[in-house]
Amino acid sequence: MTPPSPAAIAELEAALPAGSWTRDSAEIAPWLTEWRNRWTGETPLMLTPRSTAEVARAVTICASHGVAILPQGGNTGLVGGQVPFGEVLLSLRKMRAVRDVTPLDDAMTVEAGVTLLEAQQAATAAGRFFPLSLAAEGSATIGGVISTNAGGTAVLRYGMMRELVLGIEAVMPDGQIFNGLKRLRKDNTGYDLKQLLIGAEGTLGVVTAATLKLFPIMRSRATAVVGLETPHAAITLLARAKAETGGGVEAFELMKRIGVEFALKHIPDTRELLDSTPPWYVLIELTSGEPGAAEAGMERILSAAFEEGLIIDAAIAQNETQARAFWKVREEQSAAQRPEGGGWKHDVSVPVSQIADFLDEATTAVQQFEPGARVSAFGHVGDGNMHYDILCPPGADLKAFLGRWEAGSRVVHDIVDRYDGSISAEHGLGRLKTEEAMRYKSPIEIQTMRAIRKAIDPRRIMNPAVLF
Amino acid sequence: MTPPSPAAIAELEAALPAGSWTRDSAEIAPWLTEWRNRWTGETPLMLTPRSTAEVARAVTICASHGVAILPQGGNTGLVGGQVPFGEVLLSLRKMRAVRDVTPLDDAMTVEAGVTLLEAQQAATAAGRFFPLSLAAEGSATIGGVISTNAGGTAVLRYGMMRELVLGIEAVMPDGQIFNGLKRLRKDNTGYDLKQLLIGAEGTLGVVTAATLKLFPIMRSRATAVVGLETPHAAITLLARAKAETGGGVEAFELMKRIGVEFALKHIPDTRELLDSTPPWYVLIELTSGEPGAAEAGMERILSAAFEEGLIIDAAIAQNETQARAFWKVREEQSAAQRPEGGGWKHDVSVPVSQIADFLDEATTAVQQFEPGARVSAFGHVGDGNMHYDILCPPGADLKAFLGRWEAGSRVVHDIVDRYDGSISAEHGLGRLKTEEAMRYKSPIEIQTMRAIRKAIDPRRIMNPAVLF
Repeated sequence: MTPPSPAAIAELEAALPAGSWTRDSAEIAPWLTEWRNRWTGETPLMLTPRSTAEVARAVTICASHGVAILPQGGNTGLVGGQVPFGEVLLSLRKMRAVRDVTPLDDAMTVEAGVTLLEAQQAATAAGRFFPLSLAAEGSATIGGVISTNAGGTAVLRYGMMRELVLGIEAVMPDGQIFNGLKRLRKDNTGYDLKQLLIGAEGTLGVVTAATLKLFPIMRSRATAVVGLETPHAAITLLARAKAETGGGVEAFELMKRIGVEFALKHIPDTRELLDSTPPWYVLIELTSGEPGAAEAGMERILSAAFEEGLIIDAAIAQNETQARAFWKVREEQSAAQRPEGGGWKHDVSVPVSQIADFLDEATTAVQQFEPGARVSAFGHVGDGNMHYDILCPPGADLKAFLGRWEAGSRVVHDIVDRYDGSISAEHGLGRLKTEEAMRYKSPIEIQTMRAIRKAIDPRRIMNPAVLF
Repeated sequence: MTPPSPAAIAELEAALPAGSWTRDSAEIAPWLTEWRNRWTGETPLMLTPRSTAEVARAVTICASHGVAILPQGGNTGLVGGQVPFGEVLLSLRKMRAVRDVTPLDDAMTVEAGVTLLEAQQAATAAGRFFPLSLAAEGSATIGGVISTNAGGTAVLRYGMMRELVLGIEAVMPDGQIFNGLKRLRKDNTGYDLKQLLIGAEGTLGVVTAATLKLFPIMRSRATAVVGLETPHAAITLLARAKAETGGGVEAFELMKRIGVEFALKHIPDTRELLDSTPPWYVLIELTSGEPGAAEAGMERILSAAFEEGLIIDAAIAQNETQARAFWKVREEQSAAQRPEGGGWKHDVSVPVSQIADFLDEATTAVQQFEPGARVSAFGHVGDGNMHYDILCPPGADLKAFLGRWEAGSRVVHDIVDRYDGSISAEHGLGRLKTEEAMRYKSPIEIQTMRAIRKAIDPRRIMNPAVLF
C-alpha cells in the first residue's frame, strides 16, 4: 500500500473545496475507532466530498499517484473494514441527498451518506416501505450497507441489501463515474456490475448513490414470543409458519435463556418475555397485506403448535409498546453481553435445516475446548444466521480467554464449514476475517476474485487491506 | 475464434465416453436452428456430457487448444446466443439429475439440463413452489434460464432468475470446477461469483448445476381480465392493487386489442375475454397465503376501480379452466402474430411509471417512420417490460419491411434510452443485440465488462461471439 505523498495530499486539497477535506486530527479522531474498540486507525487526510463529481476528482488524483483510498460510511461495521491504516479516508457522509422517490416505480434514489433510518423515513413519507433494518440504522449509511451487503431482521421476507438495490452510481478505481442508477426491474444487457459492487467492501469502487426497491406498507402485523425446549422445535415451527402464511413471516429470531438473562440483568427497562423461563425463545413477526390476517394467522399457528407440544409457552404482543419491549430484548442481546466480560464473537450461517444440529455440535465442541465457557447464541435463525458468541467462564482470566479467540473460533468455523455454511453471514470479512476466510474458500474462488479485482483496480488502491 | 483442429477433436472424443459426443450431422441438426428460424449454425462436434467431471474434462481440453465453446441448454433462446458458428457445441441437456430437495431450507439442487417445468414439478412434489414460469418452460433448461437471467410472468412478485438462485456449480474457462452450491441465505465472504455467472450468457463459464430458492404454496389465487381505455389507467390500477394486497400481485400483463384479435383469429380454442372490446386489456393474478384472500381482494380492487371509472370492464375467472383460457390469449400473443407476416420484435423495459408515456411516444414515432405499421405491444407491464412488436402494414412488401428492421428498431431503442430503459429486458443480447447494445452502454461499463471477461477467460474461448 502506498501512503499519500505530500504532493498527492496538496493536490487533493487544492482540487476540493474547503469543508470537503481535513487534516485536523480532532475532527478525524472519531472516524478512526469503531464500536467494538478493536482497532484504532490512522490517516493523513480525511476527505468528505459533497458530490459525485468531487468523489471522482479525488479518486482520479489518488489513482494518478497510486495512493490507497478507504471509503467509509457511518463507521458502524463490525469487522474493521472501515478503519484506515495510512489510506486516505474517503468519508461519504456529506453526500446526503434523497435525489428522488417515485412511488409508481416502487423506487427511490438516495446518496451514499443518507442513513438507513433516513432512507426508511423517505420511503414511508411516500407511502412505501423500505425493509432493510438493523440495530445501527440511525448511523449506518446506504453506501455502507450496500458495500457490506447488510442483512438485518427482515431478510427472511425481503432479502439482503443485494436484493433491494435496483441501480448503483459509483466512482470506479480510475476515477470514472459508472452511472447505473436505473429504476428498472429487468435489464439483461451484459454482466450485472452493480451486483459486483454490492458486498465488495469498497474494493472495486466507491458507491456514491443507489436506487432502492420499495414495497407496499403492510396492513397487519403481529409480534409474538414463544418458548421452546430446543432449536429443533424452532425449525419445525418456522416451516409451519411459512407454509401457513404463504411466506408472511418477516422475522424469526432465536434467543437462548442465558442471553435473555443478560438483557434482564444489564439493560434498563427490560422484563421477562414469558411467565415461564424456557431454554430457548423465538421472536416471530408476521405481516400481511390483509387487515387482521397477521393477527389471525399468529393465533392459529401458535394454538396449533401449543396443542401439539411443539412450543411450551407463548405471548402475543397486545399493542405496539409490547411488541417494542419484545424486540428490545432481542436487539440488546449483543450489548447485554458486554458487562459479562468479553467474548469470542461469530457471525455464521448454515442451511436452516441444519441449524439445530450445528448448535448442538458446536456447543459440545466449545465446551470441550473451553470448559465452562458460556454460549450466547442468538440471531436470524429464519435465514440460518446465528450470532454465536462465546463468553468467558465466570471467574476465569479474561485476558487469557481472549487470547484463545482465534483458536476457539477455528473450532466453531471448522464445524460451520462441515455444514456447508459461511463464517461471515452478514458482517463481511473486513480486516477481521479475510485471512480466516482464505482457509475455507476454494482456490478457484480466490483466484477468480483476485483476477476480477486486478482487472478493475490494477494498482489495488481501493481498500487494499480487505478481501483477497 | 479458433475452430477445433482435428487433434483437438480427437482428444475430446477420446476423453469422453461414447454417447457423450457426436459428429453425426443428423443428430446435431435440430440444435443448430432456433425457434424463430433466424440463424442456422454449424459445429464440427457436439458434446453431451453427463456429469460435471465430463464437462470439466472437455473444457480443460478446449482450453489447452484455445478452442471456442458454446454452451447450450434447451435451445429456446430468442437472441441467437445458443447457436454455434464453428464453436464446439456443449449441450448440457443430458445432465438431468435433481440432486436434492430440502423443504426445510426452501431449496433444491438440480443439474443444468433439468427443464424449468421439471424443476417446478420437483418443487411441487416436495410441497413447495418454484416461481419462474415462461412459455418455453417445457424445453428451457435451468442452465439456460440462469445463463440468460430469464424473467417470465411472476417476476413482479418473485424476481428474475437472478433472485431465485442460492448457489451455482460451474466449470470455469480453464476447466476448474467452481463449487458454489450453498443452500445459504446469507454469505458475505467476498465477491458474489454466482451473480456474475447469472446472465453472463455462457461467456464466463459453464453452469452445471444450481441450488434454487423455493417458496410456500399459496392458498388462494384469483385471475381476472380487465378492459381499460389507456395504459395510463393500467399503471394506476397496478399501484392500487399492490398497495391493497401488500404485494400480492403475482402477474400484471398488458395486451392491446389488436393482439387479442390476432389470437382470436389465428389460435384455435380462444374466445373473447370480455363482453366489450376495449382498446387495452390487463390480465391480473393475485395470490395470498390466506385462504379466500386473493378472491376477496380481487373483488374489492375491481369494484372500486370500476366505480371510479378507472376500468371499463372486468371478468374474474370462476374456475381454473377459465383462468387458463385467459392466460392462453396472453401466452399466444407472440405466436398469433406469425400468420400476420413477420415483425420487428423488441423486448424493452422502462420504469413502470413511464410505460404509458413510452407507449404513446414510441407508437407515434413508429407511425411516422413506417406509416400503417401495426404495433402489438404486450407483456409484463408490472415490471415495466413490454414485448413491443411492429407488424408489416397490411398489403405492404414484407421483405422490404423486414429490411427496415434495424432502422425501425433504432427509432424504438432511442426512445427507450431516453426513458432510461433497457433494450433487452429479459431475453439477453446474444448474437442479435450485442452490437446494438454498444450504442447505449457507457464506455466505463463496456470497459469494465471487457476487463472482467479477459480476467476470467483470457483467451475468450467461452461463447466468443456474444456480449462485449
